[in-house]
Amino acid sequence: MDNKAIKITSTQEETYTLISIELDGVIEPSDLKSLTGLPDIVSESRAHLGIVLSGRAPIWLYGYLIHHYHPCAWVAVYDPRLGAVIVQSHDKKYTAGDIIPVSI
Amino acid sequence: MDNKAIKITSTQEETYTLISIELDGVIEPSDLKSLTGLPDIVSESRAHLGIVLSGRAPIWLYGYLIHHYHPCAWVAVYDPRLGAVIVQSHDKKYTAGDIIPVSI
Repeated sequence: MDNKAIKITSTQEETYTLISIELDGVIEPSDLKSLTGLPDIVSESRAHLGIVLSGRAPIWLYGYLIHHYHPCAWVAVYDPRLGAVIVQSHDKKYTAGDIIPVSI
Repeated sequence: MDNKAIKITSTQEETYTLISIELDGVIEPSDLKSLTGLPDIVSESRAHLGIVLSGRAPIWLYGYLIHHYHPCAWVAVYDPRLGAVIVQSHDKKYTAGDIIPVSI
């Protein structure tokens, strides 16, 4: 990962890839332009699985990542109080608003 | 708008539609399943314009709306400190990370 301010790491679970966001200091929207090294789920043939996004970050960074991973089977946002909330799904098993228990 | 807890209103500006989110009490992810009456930008032929999302809401609600409006020319998230931050764009004029001044 070359991005100084935004650290993105991934962990492969059985049915989803967990994408963890860590911020080093204050980030700016222009940091999105130099955001490289995002886990390349699509070319790694993991797009038939889901994505769970986790970590403290501005809504615009989440927005960017949610769009980036839209080819995946489903995308969820981890809320510590609730679990992983599905926000989009191409998978018949899930609909937006479903909550998936994840261990983070 | 029939949703008790989630109020979504829209204002048409010259180059974008402003989507304002207002929450009435605590909302739950399952409220997404009964979210009706979203401004139908696509069938109203406003998809060649952008979308600015604004208001205090959980990231998962933003995630749902960002995905919902992805056919639009671009989608931005309003941050009171910064302006509207582009998170996705099919429009050559903008790239993710650009900031558009908006009056809210």
